[in-house]
Amino acid sequence: MSSVPENTQLGKHVVIENNVVIGENVTIGHNTTILQGTQIGDDVIIGNNCVLGIKTSGNERMRKKADKYGSLNIQSGSRIGNIASIYAGTDIGKNVFIGDHASIRENVSIGDKSVVGRAAIVELNSTIGDSCTIQTLAYVTGDTTLEDNVFIGPCVSMSNDKYMGAKNFTLNGPYIKSGAKIGNNASLLPGITVGRNSIIGAGAAVTKDIEDNITAAGVPAKRLNSDGNK
Amino acid sequence: MSSVPENTQLGKHVVIENNVVIGENVTIGHNTTILQGTQIGDDVIIGNNCVLGIKTSGNERMRKKADKYGSLNIQSGSRIGNIASIYAGTDIGKNVFIGDHASIRENVSIGDKSVVGRAAIVELNSTIGDSCTIQTLAYVTGDTTLEDNVFIGPCVSMSNDKYMGAKNFTLNGPYIKSGAKIGNNASLLPGITVGRNSIIGAGAAVTKDIEDNITAAGVPAKRLNSDGNK
Amino acid sequence: MSSVPENTQLGKHVVIENNVVIGENVTIGHNTTILQGTQIGDDVIIGNNCVLGIKTSGNERMRKKADKYGSLNIQSGSRIGNIASIYAGTDIGKNVFIGDHASIRENVSIGDKSVVGRAAIVELNSTIGDSCTIQTLAYVTGDTTLEDNVFIGPCVSMSNDKYMGAKNFTLNGPYIKSGAKIGNNASLLPGITVGRNSIIGAGAAVTKDIEDNITAAGVPAKRLNSDGNK
Repeated sequence: MSSVPENTQLGKHVVIENNVVIGENVTIGHNTTILQGTQIGDDVIIGNNCVLGIKTSGNERMRKKADKYGSLNIQSGSRIGNIASIYAGTDIGKNVFIGDHASIRENVSIGDKSVVGRAAIVELNSTIGDSCTIQTLAYVTGDTTLEDNVFIGPCVSMSNDKYMGAKNFTLNGPYIKSGAKIGNNASLLPGITVGRNSIIGAGAAVTKDIEDNITAAGVPAKRLNSDGNK
Repeated sequence: MSSVPENTQLGKHVVIENNVVIGENVTIGHNTTILQGTQIGDDVIIGNNCVLGIKTSGNERMRKKADKYGSLNIQSGSRIGNIASIYAGTDIGKNVFIGDHASIRENVSIGDKSVVGRAAIVELNSTIGDSCTIQTLAYVTGDTTLEDNVFIGPCVSMSNDKYMGAKNFTLNGPYIKSGAKIGNNASLLPGITVGRNSIIGAGAAVTKDIEDNITAAGVPAKRLNSDGNK
Repeated sequence: MSSVPENTQLGKHVVIENNVVIGENVTIGHNTTILQGTQIGDDVIIGNNCVLGIKTSGNERMRKKADKYGSLNIQSGSRIGNIASIYAGTDIGKNVFIGDHASIRENVSIGDKSVVGRAAIVELNSTIGDSCTIQTLAYVTGDTTLEDNVFIGPCVSMSNDKYMGAKNFTLNGPYIKSGAKIGNNASLLPGITVGRNSIIGAGAAVTKDIEDNITAAGVPAKRLNSDGNK
């Protein structure tokens, strides 16, 4: 049984599985699928053709999954676009915006007022602070931390596996400190830290830690002088 | 009320909201959602599980939206793939092809015979000329202009916000002149111009204007000599 | 007529067209569309809101399509995520994992136990060996070969058209030999070969063939010395 208040605006062909809890004044678009156990706060707006509350899957060559995750919990005032997918075991804060075609994995936390852009992806075990912006088509790999007010430009890429599957390595995504800004299509390597309020140029490859308040660019990324040259 | 001619080939579980106008000999795939006010020309073919005619959304931290946009208008002979999303307030020309998983925002104009590839994204307020090719996973940011016959390679990235949200800045995407070709995974910075028939190498970062008839490559992109070296 | 065994777990609003053959103990999620002629092996699990068995399409400016392809054939034990699209004329091996939002074109072969990541794309006429990993948002262009045990990092980009549509050119994707590993967001040019067990750095642009057992990085990619410098 699920709890769907009378003031829910339900589209056509919506599927709501068991044990779904829906708050007051929620809108759910057409052809959207809400899987078992999903919890949706008040005033949430969900677009068309989404899939919410997905259980983890994989094949024998993929990382072992936790045996059990909790529900997907979408807090009040958040908006989910169209054709988006979000996993069970993840917490979406208040007044968050998730774009069309975006995908968010399990065991992720997204802080209040953050924006996950169109077709952006956030992998498992990642923590996104408050008021972050993850732009279109950006890729936040697993085991990544963004503190508050971080800006991830369009098409930014991250990785969390130093040996690309060749050796045992504790998967470790980037750690991006408060106020840092990553330019479009930059590449961040496993485990690197980007310091507070630092800026990474478009197309850079960040292979080492970047201190606070630095501007760096290039492949590999190097600190720019005050005149903008390396 | 909507106008759906008898010769429409309608899939199963298609949702057609109010005030949709459909031309002659249109095909609409299964599980596709056509939202209010969408206008579809003759001989248009739309795939399965699409969402067409989306109204703009956002949260308090995102760009203020126009109060009102017109309809989505798809002109005759165009084809839309599967799992694609297109917004209201956009005009798709004649004989255009939009790939699967592609997403096109509001207030966009796409010229006749252009191709928007699989999972490619065109953001708001952008103008795409005739016979352009935007390849797979390419990202056309907001406020961008492509003249006619422009080629955007796979995974090309663009940005339109010089200060990444840190300062007030009039958002300004790239301006790409007729016949220019952008190599795969190149990064284009806000407001840069690429000249007529110029060629940008794969993986380049274009940080300054590029004149007509130039080949440029590297991070940052520099003009190549006739022997292909910088 | 289609063959759907009684032990099939069928979601709601699933569309199964004619001549679909489904093996034993198959699960199909809600709102998924299975198009004409698709063949699904035993113990396959398919997510929600997918489109499987798509026929090729295009407009007058795109590559001429083959007149006829066979069915989509998904072999036993494979898992397809949510909101994925796969074309007719393609063969998915045993125990393969295809992520959410992924898209696989026609005339593709994917070997046993391989993984195609979330929102990754494999274009037409490509051959993927056994036990390959294609990570999230990676782009495998048309006419590409991956031998066995190849690792393609997140957001890797490839191209197959040397002249970007300007001249006649036989389309020719990269050829990546067994055990090679491509770092995240690297760009591979048309027709290049990456040798056995070679490693390409994150953000590199590979413009020439890379021999066996080499590590290369940079734009353009150059061989690294043993101390990691160019």
